[in-house]
Amino acid sequence: MRYCARIAYDGTRFAGFQFQRNASPTVQETLEQALEAISGEPHRVIGAGRTDAGVHALGQVVAFDLAWVHPVDALQRALNARLPDDLVVLALAEAEATFHPRFDARSRRYRYRLCVSEWPDPLRRHLVWHLRPPLSLEAMGEAAGALIGRQDFSTFGSPPDGDNAVRTVLRAEWQIVDDEWWFTIQADAFLYRMVRRIVASLVEVGQGRRSPAEFREALAAKNPALAAAAAPACGLTLMDVEY
Amino acid sequence: MRYCARIAYDGTRFAGFQFQRNASPTVQETLEQALEAISGEPHRVIGAGRTDAGVHALGQVVAFDLAWVHPVDALQRALNARLPDDLVVLALAEAEATFHPRFDARSRRYRYRLCVSEWPDPLRRHLVWHLRPPLSLEAMGEAAGALIGRQDFSTFGSPPDGDNAVRTVLRAEWQIVDDEWWFTIQADAFLYRMVRRIVASLVEVGQGRRSPAEFREALAAKNPALAAAAAPACGLTLMDVEY
Repeated sequence: MRYCARIAYDGTRFAGFQFQRNASPTVQETLEQALEAISGEPHRVIGAGRTDAGVHALGQVVAFDLAWVHPVDALQRALNARLPDDLVVLALAEAEATFHPRFDARSRRYRYRLCVSEWPDPLRRHLVWHLRPPLSLEAMGEAAGALIGRQDFSTFGSPPDGDNAVRTVLRAEWQIVDDEWWFTIQADAFLYRMVRRIVASLVEVGQGRRSPAEFREALAAKNPALAAAAAPACGLTLMDVEY
Repeated sequence: MRYCARIAYDGTRFAGFQFQRNASPTVQETLEQALEAISGEPHRVIGAGRTDAGVHALGQVVAFDLAWVHPVDALQRALNARLPDDLVVLALAEAEATFHPRFDARSRRYRYRLCVSEWPDPLRRHLVWHLRPPLSLEAMGEAAGALIGRQDFSTFGSPPDGDNAVRTVLRAEWQIVDDEWWFTIQADAFLYRMVRRIVASLVEVGQGRRSPAEFREALAAKNPALAAAAAPACGLTLMDVEY
């Protein structure tokens, strides 16, 4: 039987989602080890999004095959009992045998959290990018508007081999929540480092180091040299995957 | 010159605020080490509240004496440059030579955060006490009302040697903030473990394991055997000290 799980993790300790030869632990191998502990056999876990080291998730979606004769909620409890406390299976269900979390996904939604204050809050240091004021929400919102639609995002990220950089951004907006500034971006798919390079470039707009028009021109130029270096991984969370 | 600082810390890594012979690091010694690194001389730091191991602060107040010829904001920057990233000086000012953060405090305010959900959120595992539903906010609020006023809190904590257990609780209330339940309690002073034992006892009320009337009777009985074991330290934050 194929199972589909919604998982959450604190990315701080993980070398990203995907298995890597030279970095450990990853979210993928941690899940695979828990499944092997339960079933006694090796398992392959597939994820919807390959989050980088330090990037968090509250709504990552994964799939795996497992022979399991007990109720599905007993499997969820068994998994959570074996997983470390920075990785949690929030929901688990049976899926169609052909379900693929990455290829079947229609869109992904990420949130990037800024905390704009004179001094950082130590309780949120692994969850936000701390920036000192001033920062213009208006300018960042204006620039973010340029991201909407189907276009070539070569400026902000590189596609996998053999793919192009055209993606469709459905939503890209800022909101203020208490003393945090949240950037929400939803797209059919994302390029490598795309969200973090967009956020860092938008922050340059907010700091007056480039204008919204210059941000728009950088996007149109399809030139990676025109993007800012990636914003810190800790501010980013994969919120949701839509099917 | 005596200085007064408002500090914040993530209590996860600290063995509490106060210096202890057998546990390290404490917040106090970490501050004292930073001051010594700046001045070349040993310093004594006094705090308003002796938070336990694992308890956080967003508004702890400390005082120390230092000979410093530069502007006060340069001292704040110098301190923050030397402190680890889980301890931050949020504000710093010159104080009267007689200022004492503990004896001069008129009240302290603590927040205890519960996260009530089927599964814990790994991003907040060091900041909240995770509980599964059901939990009755109404019953917990009714019981909390019994805490208000000047009374003997022997049931919920022990006083320092030579002191009695009479304290004045000015505020004790629950509020829901997104998926968290926050308990705010403000008093002239607190006994050892008092907030965490109150919270654990209120949670028993919320879970229907004791009634609001039984909570009130436990308080009136001045009997430590009638309190629940302390709630986890990670949910507790010292928010503010009033002078």
